Amino acid sequence: MNEFQFLDYIREKYALGKVGDDCAVLPQGPETDLLITADMLVEDVDFRLEWAVPELLGHKALAVSLSDIAAMGGSPTWAMISIGIPDELWAKGFLERFYEGYFDLASSHGVELVGGDISRMPKYLAVDSVVGGQVTRGNAILRSTAASGDAIFLSGSIGGAAGGLRLLENGLRYERNESEPHRRLLLKQLRPQPELLTANSLQQLGLVTAMIDVSDGLSSDLGHICHSSRKGAVIEADLLPIDPDLYENFSPNECLQFALNGGEDYRLLFTAPSKAIATLTGMGAVRIGEITSEIGRIDLVEGGNSRPIDPAGYQHFS
Amino acid sequence: MNEFQFLDYIREKYALGKVGDDCAVLPQGPETDLLITADMLVEDVDFRLEWAVPELLGHKALAVSLSDIAAMGGSPTWAMISIGIPDELWAKGFLERFYEGYFDLASSHGVELVGGDISRMPKYLAVDSVVGGQVTRGNAILRSTAASGDAIFLSGSIGGAAGGLRLLENGLRYERNESEPHRRLLLKQLRPQPELLTANSLQQLGLVTAMIDVSDGLSSDLGHICHSSRKGAVIEADLLPIDPDLYENFSPNECLQFALNGGEDYRLLFTAPSKAIATLTGMGAVRIGEITSEIGRIDLVEGGNSRPIDPAGYQHFS
Repeated sequence: MNEFQFLDYIREKYALGKVGDDCAVLPQGPETDLLITADMLVEDVDFRLEWAVPELLGHKALAVSLSDIAAMGGSPTWAMISIGIPDELWAKGFLERFYEGYFDLASSHGVELVGGDISRMPKYLAVDSVVGGQVTRGNAILRSTAASGDAIFLSGSIGGAAGGLRLLENGLRYERNESEPHRRLLLKQLRPQPELLTANSLQQLGLVTAMIDVSDGLSSDLGHICHSSRKGAVIEADLLPIDPDLYENFSPNECLQFALNGGEDYRLLFTAPSKAIATLTGMGAVRIGEITSEIGRIDLVEGGNSRPIDPAGYQHFS
Repeated sequence: MNEFQFLDYIREKYALGKVGDDCAVLPQGPETDLLITADMLVEDVDFRLEWAVPELLGHKALAVSLSDIAAMGGSPTWAMISIGIPDELWAKGFLERFYEGYFDLASSHGVELVGGDISRMPKYLAVDSVVGGQVTRGNAILRSTAASGDAIFLSGSIGGAAGGLRLLENGLRYERNESEPHRRLLLKQLRPQPELLTANSLQQLGLVTAMIDVSDGLSSDLGHICHSSRKGAVIEADLLPIDPDLYENFSPNECLQFALNGGEDYRLLFTAPSKAIATLTGMGAVRIGEITSEIGRIDLVEGGNSRPIDPAGYQHFS
């Protein structure tokens, strides 16, 4: 079982009605619902210390959870951060720099740190980032509500974070004087930006039927929407907003693979009825395909041919 | 710097008004405040796999956070759990057994699991347990509100969890047919019970001025109350409710050390005006001393002599 199958199993076994979206939605008052989300970042799984800039890691730890709030169409309000840290990093003052980046992002979104935990870890840095937010009652945008015939959109370019990861694996480092296109790709990986403003605009338009953020990879995250909505999808390779900086460094096929399966771009992936296409593309959203009624099937149209693709984004266990 | 000093530093630097108690208290509605808390449990720091029973570890992960809600005089409502787990434990089905214990405790307190995260860890199991609860608006019981002259109470015996830990270190195991007193001590360490009922009674009485749970150790946790309240304390060795099972296994001095510095008993440690002594002891609370105006000083009275003691409970960093 991979972790998604295990979560399905646990959700079923214990009748967990609120598990399975980017955030849990809890009634909070007559006018608002509470949104909460938790995300772990683990050394040598999500990042390597040899390329981690502590401030950027602090930024990213918060950004990935803010992105989950965005993916529900909500606004973040408070946060907690739990950190397991080995002795030698503690002694080097890693945490103080980590918090610098964390608080820079928190304050720019008006998010207040209200708690968390600090523990020694024997080895490997591990961080659990928790964010709470709110949304007008009943207005959280779920994964499970896409309809057949809906158009599928991305809020911006994808693949850049995966390209940045490849550059890091190839030995490039952000702190050095790399070229501008390289630095842009490295920052896509190291300092993703949660799309809270876009989410807010989409929420106010009221046209979006389902939404998720691209954390695992387009093929997987679109798979999550299809799985939860009991639908399928067709996407067109020519429509994918592949990060333009990728083409200078990678083959066309690598670029497409990064865009389909790379993950960590934290763009919003969402669906809306076809009558909303003009409005949404006018706002800068990119239409990439359409929701179908063929449950669980995702087809990629490329060069006039159509072929089914499997969710091939990141998973921890197989 | 140890982690408590570091948290003081970060709290000051970033003006974090809601950090520093067992839970953060957030306004939720006209009648209730939201309580939230996060606790990490890390392999080889908080437990060892060689003695961990997965179901009991799942229980404990939730129990320590429920205890934080109890320590504020609140009631838990929802929970999230983030788990970083190595491949070999994942493959062995460790998590399914972990969840068994987790959900047994959750359902007995009406707590709903609403989210979390699962990540691979290269090595070492790490768990971050988050619980949300509520309390009548303005009624959360803080650490920072003890007054000079208040009596100090414990909700039950202490030292047992530390005694159980020593037995585990000495090679005893819960799964074997150990003697009843040994099993009771082992369970104090492996399956602590959050004192939510007692907390609820104390909340309704309205007599308690400050409260914390004994997680780090009596000397440290009383130190936290004194530090936050800018007070001191005197406690009497003869009044300490040392776990009776300890005496069969350990010397009188070891028993006292376990009670003072052992931690993990998850009893409630609280203060109330002296006029409340009869009522509270009538409920089963044990009076152990008195709050003084000597900021930061804790004296232990033993055999007619008084000596200052340092917080010597658990800390991760020195």
